[in-house]
Amino acid sequence: MVDVIAKKRNGGELNAKEIQYFVDGVVNQTIPDYQISAFLMAVYFKDMTSKERLELTMKMMQSGDQLNLTSIPGIKVDKHSTGGVGDKVSLPLAAVVAATGIPVPMISGRGLGHTGGTLDKLEAIPGYQVEISSKEFIKQVAKDKLAIVGATGDIAPADKKIYSLRDVTATVDSIPLIASSIMSKKIASGTDALVIDVKTGAGAFMKSLEDSIELAQALVDIGKGVGLKCMAVISDMNQPLGNKIGNSLEIEESIDILKNKGPQDVRELVLTLGSYMVVLGEKAATFDEAKKMLEKVIADGTALECFRKMIIDQGGDGRVIDDYSIMPQAKFRIDLPARESGVVSKIKADEIGIASMQLGGGRQKASDKLDYSVGIELNKKIGDPISKDDSLLTIYSNSEDIDDVKTLLYDNIEIAKSASAPQMIYQIVD
Amino acid sequence: MVDVIAKKRNGGELNAKEIQYFVDGVVNQTIPDYQISAFLMAVYFKDMTSKERLELTMKMMQSGDQLNLTSIPGIKVDKHSTGGVGDKVSLPLAAVVAATGIPVPMISGRGLGHTGGTLDKLEAIPGYQVEISSKEFIKQVAKDKLAIVGATGDIAPADKKIYSLRDVTATVDSIPLIASSIMSKKIASGTDALVIDVKTGAGAFMKSLEDSIELAQALVDIGKGVGLKCMAVISDMNQPLGNKIGNSLEIEESIDILKNKGPQDVRELVLTLGSYMVVLGEKAATFDEAKKMLEKVIADGTALECFRKMIIDQGGDGRVIDDYSIMPQAKFRIDLPARESGVVSKIKADEIGIASMQLGGGRQKASDKLDYSVGIELNKKIGDPISKDDSLLTIYSNSEDIDDVKTLLYDNIEIAKSASAPQMIYQIVD
Repeated sequence: MVDVIAKKRNGGELNAKEIQYFVDGVVNQTIPDYQISAFLMAVYFKDMTSKERLELTMKMMQSGDQLNLTSIPGIKVDKHSTGGVGDKVSLPLAAVVAATGIPVPMISGRGLGHTGGTLDKLEAIPGYQVEISSKEFIKQVAKDKLAIVGATGDIAPADKKIYSLRDVTATVDSIPLIASSIMSKKIASGTDALVIDVKTGAGAFMKSLEDSIELAQALVDIGKGVGLKCMAVISDMNQPLGNKIGNSLEIEESIDILKNKGPQDVRELVLTLGSYMVVLGEKAATFDEAKKMLEKVIADGTALECFRKMIIDQGGDGRVIDDYSIMPQAKFRIDLPARESGVVSKIKADEIGIASMQLGGGRQKASDKLDYSVGIELNKKIGDPISKDDSLLTIYSNSEDIDDVKTLLYDNIEIAKSASAPQMIYQIVD
Repeated sequence: MVDVIAKKRNGGELNAKEIQYFVDGVVNQTIPDYQISAFLMAVYFKDMTSKERLELTMKMMQSGDQLNLTSIPGIKVDKHSTGGVGDKVSLPLAAVVAATGIPVPMISGRGLGHTGGTLDKLEAIPGYQVEISSKEFIKQVAKDKLAIVGATGDIAPADKKIYSLRDVTATVDSIPLIASSIMSKKIASGTDALVIDVKTGAGAFMKSLEDSIELAQALVDIGKGVGLKCMAVISDMNQPLGNKIGNSLEIEESIDILKNKGPQDVRELVLTLGSYMVVLGEKAATFDEAKKMLEKVIADGTALECFRKMIIDQGGDGRVIDDYSIMPQAKFRIDLPARESGVVSKIKADEIGIASMQLGGGRQKASDKLDYSVGIELNKKIGDPISKDDSLLTIYSNSEDIDDVKTLLYDNIEIAKSASAPQMIYQIVD
């Protein structure tokens, strides 16, 4: 192993055998942690070639269980997001794409820190089961074209081990390590096509557009390298996505989108990601054609019915579609008034996510219990004019003692003389 | 710790508190190995400033026992070498310097791999004790001006731990880590002045002159930074030093030097290092004056008597001075004939050292037992003309079944049409 570390440290390209040796050693625990972490730091500084990234992804993928979805007819299309605040897009998106007849076998995760998780949001719906067997998952996708579940089995154990070390050795923000981590899990999930939503901006993992594009390209290259139909969209995460942040609240907003309502930015992102998914799924030849299909399935209620069906089939209470109040509701709604007049110029996404977490809507550590009812509703977004004392946002809380949260929110929202809304979609990478 | 790693990874300068935190964590085992090794790899890539190097050295030094030599009158002067093959210089050097009245409290080490160790060589002398208490060590230096011993107590435990991790994580060849490792131990030994022999060339740790100068400067800067009188000499290690490699053999050559005989290159290096030691020890004002003093103590036998006295006082058999045969002698002397005529153009030091190790004269791992009798005597050195079938070197062995060793030797000695001897001293760094 010391030779493998030295080779990477000196900028050499590791061959398939060396990468296999590394991944095997990680899984079998024959390579000690201190050598793994030295190797990861060497990768941080010396990067990996496309060939190495592909090998690492494949070996990590092969280190665990892989889902076989070939029994489901059609091109299966999934979406992955690098994570943001208020990002409930997966929910309406999966429904609109499935409504066009494309199977969407979506394996999602839970939230940590300022970022929410799709599974957590779904669990705000009474009865909804995110943990179902692979067999049932496949059966449901075949039947409904749609299921959103948590990972089952032992997906990419090499990645789990490596990720836990990266987290404590300052080697998280390395493009080859991020990309192989994401893609090993996605490839193991057995999808045929993948649209990746790479967030950019203050609330995203990648703060600069340049870094976001680099990551997007790395992800797409790996995907294509293993024969996946794959592309990426770079979208804004300077401010939270949509107006609502919190679990019950984001289910509401998701269903609103499927009712042809809801915030414009969420709708735009759903239509953009969805159109590319429909193109990759070969239900439309062009983006514009796909977009028209999606607008139709939203307008005629097909997508909403698709979503209702999924909820019911996964054990959830389908009445939520028509009655949001069956989800946990917060005791208090507290408005945060603007301290001055002007135009909202900044709503720092990550800090708003932390505010929601502090209300109980998110997890500081993996074992924290969630309060589905709490959250934040933005009444103004960047570019909106506001008068002093008007409500900037509404806090949904089960406590009135939330001065710390208010301070955090005030500290991370700015009002200026003028400002304009950031664009939603920055770039397409394929 | 993850913040400290990230700071170094991003090229930041660690402050005294952060370095203290790191060294404390290493010693107390509160920082896990995987974080230490990630940190070391970050240092490998991002280096350390002079201030950081000094702090790290001091904190590592303070992590263990320190020897207090203030009870010995005069300026105590020691020498350190970065290690080479056939490098017996410490032995005659300590004696010639001590013969001028300068106290030389020399704490030496054992050999590993291709490099021999001063303590191992001394143990070829029947009865010689390298492990004596600090109290006796101080007493002997005060009395004889000279003692050569192994380290006692717990010297720089932080360095021990860090060194063992560097060895298995490809972070050995980092100037700040090498320099702080060497200097933490030397400063702990309580000397007032230090001359460092930094080897350069194929058989040295630093292969290029540029790297050797960089290391020398790093060592001298740290030494001066803590108030030590300190300088470095860059000397050749392309071929082995002197003619003899092996434990008994190197004692012979060392005593030869003190008898005003022996190979010219060893004599030149002894006189050079020694003269600087005498200047730092303030027994002479200039290098030339010091050199004349050393030539005198060799010529008049004072240095030889000094060495004999040390041997006897450390329990050794003083008759070795006049009768080398009281040391272990090899059963066979086997000549290696030149396969062609020409001029010796290469004698690869590290591989010759490995040949000697394979004969039993060195250690592959720390627990290996040594055969003091074996070794190699070079009959020709680089620049010497040789005729086909003349003896290139003599192998001292206790087995006649040494074809592997012969092959290794032939593979690492070259004869060309012309070649000239490399210079011995490349540069002085202070």
